[in-house]
Amino acid sequence: MASLTPQNAKPFSLASTWLRVLPKKSCANVTNLAKNAKKLGQDDPRRITHSFKVGLALTLVSMLFYVQPLYDSFGSSTMWAIMTVVVVMEFSVGATLGKGINRMLATLLGGSLGFGVQQLATLTEKEDHSIVIAFSLFIIGAIMTFVRFFPGVKAKYDYGFSIFILTFSLVSISSYRDDYIQILACKRLLTIIIGSFLAMIVSICIWPVWIGEDLHNLVASNIEKLGDFLEGLGEDYFDESDGTKTVTNKSFADKYETVLNSKTREETMANLAGWEACHGRFRFRHPWKQYLKVGNLTRKCAYKIEALDCYISNDPGNKIKDSCQYAGIESGKALKELSSAIKSMTWFSTTTKAHIANAKGAIKSLNSLVKENTREGIDVLEIVPILAVASLLTDVIISIQRISEAVDELASLAHFKMTTINVTKPLPLQREGTIQPIMFQDELLYNITSSTSPKQYEISSIALMIHSV
Amino acid sequence: MASLTPQNAKPFSLASTWLRVLPKKSCANVTNLAKNAKKLGQDDPRRITHSFKVGLALTLVSMLFYVQPLYDSFGSSTMWAIMTVVVVMEFSVGATLGKGINRMLATLLGGSLGFGVQQLATLTEKEDHSIVIAFSLFIIGAIMTFVRFFPGVKAKYDYGFSIFILTFSLVSISSYRDDYIQILACKRLLTIIIGSFLAMIVSICIWPVWIGEDLHNLVASNIEKLGDFLEGLGEDYFDESDGTKTVTNKSFADKYETVLNSKTREETMANLAGWEACHGRFRFRHPWKQYLKVGNLTRKCAYKIEALDCYISNDPGNKIKDSCQYAGIESGKALKELSSAIKSMTWFSTTTKAHIANAKGAIKSLNSLVKENTREGIDVLEIVPILAVASLLTDVIISIQRISEAVDELASLAHFKMTTINVTKPLPLQREGTIQPIMFQDELLYNITSSTSPKQYEISSIALMIHSV
Repeated sequence: MASLTPQNAKPFSLASTWLRVLPKKSCANVTNLAKNAKKLGQDDPRRITHSFKVGLALTLVSMLFYVQPLYDSFGSSTMWAIMTVVVVMEFSVGATLGKGINRMLATLLGGSLGFGVQQLATLTEKEDHSIVIAFSLFIIGAIMTFVRFFPGVKAKYDYGFSIFILTFSLVSISSYRDDYIQILACKRLLTIIIGSFLAMIVSICIWPVWIGEDLHNLVASNIEKLGDFLEGLGEDYFDESDGTKTVTNKSFADKYETVLNSKTREETMANLAGWEACHGRFRFRHPWKQYLKVGNLTRKCAYKIEALDCYISNDPGNKIKDSCQYAGIESGKALKELSSAIKSMTWFSTTTKAHIANAKGAIKSLNSLVKENTREGIDVLEIVPILAVASLLTDVIISIQRISEAVDELASLAHFKMTTINVTKPLPLQREGTIQPIMFQDELLYNITSSTSPKQYEISSIALMIHSV
Repeated sequence: MASLTPQNAKPFSLASTWLRVLPKKSCANVTNLAKNAKKLGQDDPRRITHSFKVGLALTLVSMLFYVQPLYDSFGSSTMWAIMTVVVVMEFSVGATLGKGINRMLATLLGGSLGFGVQQLATLTEKEDHSIVIAFSLFIIGAIMTFVRFFPGVKAKYDYGFSIFILTFSLVSISSYRDDYIQILACKRLLTIIIGSFLAMIVSICIWPVWIGEDLHNLVASNIEKLGDFLEGLGEDYFDESDGTKTVTNKSFADKYETVLNSKTREETMANLAGWEACHGRFRFRHPWKQYLKVGNLTRKCAYKIEALDCYISNDPGNKIKDSCQYAGIESGKALKELSSAIKSMTWFSTTTKAHIANAKGAIKSLNSLVKENTREGIDVLEIVPILAVASLLTDVIISIQRISEAVDELASLAHFKMTTINVTKPLPLQREGTIQPIMFQDELLYNITSSTSPKQYEISSIALMIHSV
């Protein structure tokens, strides 16, 4: 192949090489494409069903053309029904409903205003019609375009305003040439309504994709991912006898990369979910905005964990104490409790609080451990990483507490099932012993007995712990 | 007003109250709306000019209706030109070009395929026409909808695929009813080209909004915001004699909230900027993707700073040493150098590297300071916050270095002006003295003299410092 540089290649040999290489290359490309397509379908099979749904909706709407009586009543306006189906049919029910409703209302209002302008134009001389129409087109076009910049409008009604300008322009300009503009506009509105309803019915009735449910699951799974990472912090990382970081940790970092950048996605989903009426476990006016609050707090927690992760990877040589590991496991469990509470829509606040309290207790005991050690003359700089991890973990625990409060609020707003668990059985403490909840002077205490080195975490009341920050 | 609860309110008094309250309320609403509109316009005056541009484009395209010879040649197909202007006319040049080109190509290809299906249908019996058309509609609709899920297609050609399905459906279905479909399809294509070009010309020629320039400025200003914060860390926060956090810091947190969540926005902008040809300082094929790399590293740096900020706000009572302040100021300066390098498209790598080296030196001296202090028997837990801030600052400095490398790459890809500055004048050191760059055995050293407490930072060669991590 080195002989085929542009300097010495003869046209014939170049062509023959291309002829040999091209089929292989295009074959590889096709295989690659097929692999990608398969992966897309496997990642979310609803993509395949959605594609068939669009095909079905198109075939259904084409019936308006084939069936003579239907075509007789609408004529060439039927094409608006086809356009509507193509444009309105979105992946999720919320997006389809939002676009359909926006399109129908905007066509009605834009058409009415266009008709009003036509009436206004007829009050003037015939020669001035075009001036009145052009002037109103300029003014209404400019004003409506500016209104689209309002954040509230942009989020939910952007498409509607675009269709409003479109219909207004079409109706008002057509009125200059066509005297039967009212009939035409009515037919257009009617076919757009038919197309919108067809798209909405197909979207809702055949394998519906509820974006609200997706948002619900996304928020819960983001929390779960962080919980997995924190638990893994204890199990995978600290447990390595030589202290080096395992390769699996890399995938944790990748995992919460999606958590860190989910804000825009969550906001779009919450806006679209607002269009969906009650479905499945979700009632009408489900508090979708509260999910954004939980999502924001989850991201803040993820920023802390990101810092924690970098810290650990920068100093892999240091031995981190049991308490750090325990705090990581307990805060991971707290997050997983929160995630499963959202997923199952059942709220046990007590167990989450117990895990948070345990994690805090571990950090507290770590601090006193450090104090003792340094009195014995250990080099401070050697325990700096431990201290840094401990202080970052404290931050993580505080932000978990904030997530817990937001989930609590969500639970009451969204009418989660409320369950109180009486913690009487000892919780198993990994590798270290057990935590025994005990009642002492009306306060719930945790008595932690370690199998390796007997020590007691004196944690006062959970309530006190949780409100002390 | 307490008497107007639904239980005891009489219809008459309720109505009169409404009559009294409503005008005031709507008056307040209108004032509020006007205020919001004014703010929207002031925040970005290009919103107002864009609105007028849309109005102008609509008025211009309506001329196709008023001018008899033009209307004679296109007839009712003229409405496609209006639709095209409304839909294609976007805020930025990139978005308008992208939509226009997508729309024209998709109409051409979709129409051709639709015509092909019509030809295929004519090969069959007349009664089977509708079956062939309906079947191809289902298959092509489903396949093209699935293709829209490919990430590469979704990012740049989603609109084109939607228009492809639309045109294909319209042409193939219409062919069932209309034998002159080719002429109609050609007219439609022609008016769509006219509308697209009109929108693109208005978008480019009248106060153009180049999204590439916006991306360029966004990336630079995000880096600058972080620099401001780090400099402020030294000046505003640490400098307070009582150590409490000043109120202005709250606004810093708000400022980099937008930095943290800019990923989606930057990606959209880079995709749209790809449609823009050379303009102003930007050549054809400007490396927009490299801005995403710089942006990603900026966000990673912001995560670290977020952790730093929380740490500081959690422990406001502790005195933080001079070195921390100095490291903050120097890393802030490094970021601001990077930001102004991007803004001015002129790259001085030496000064940035000097600031980074200075910041590292400050952290180094801090560590030795801590070592000395603890030997003297100071309580470790009291200096934990200092240690944590120092370790987080180290992380921040490392990520600034990565940003610097990415900007270096950007500078060579985008052909920034390269300038080497010979650092011979002493850099002023705020509140503390001066940094004197000195040459010692072919290595650039920085001699820092403090006005308050004389001390020397021994920093070996910058190159060594920068490659040691």
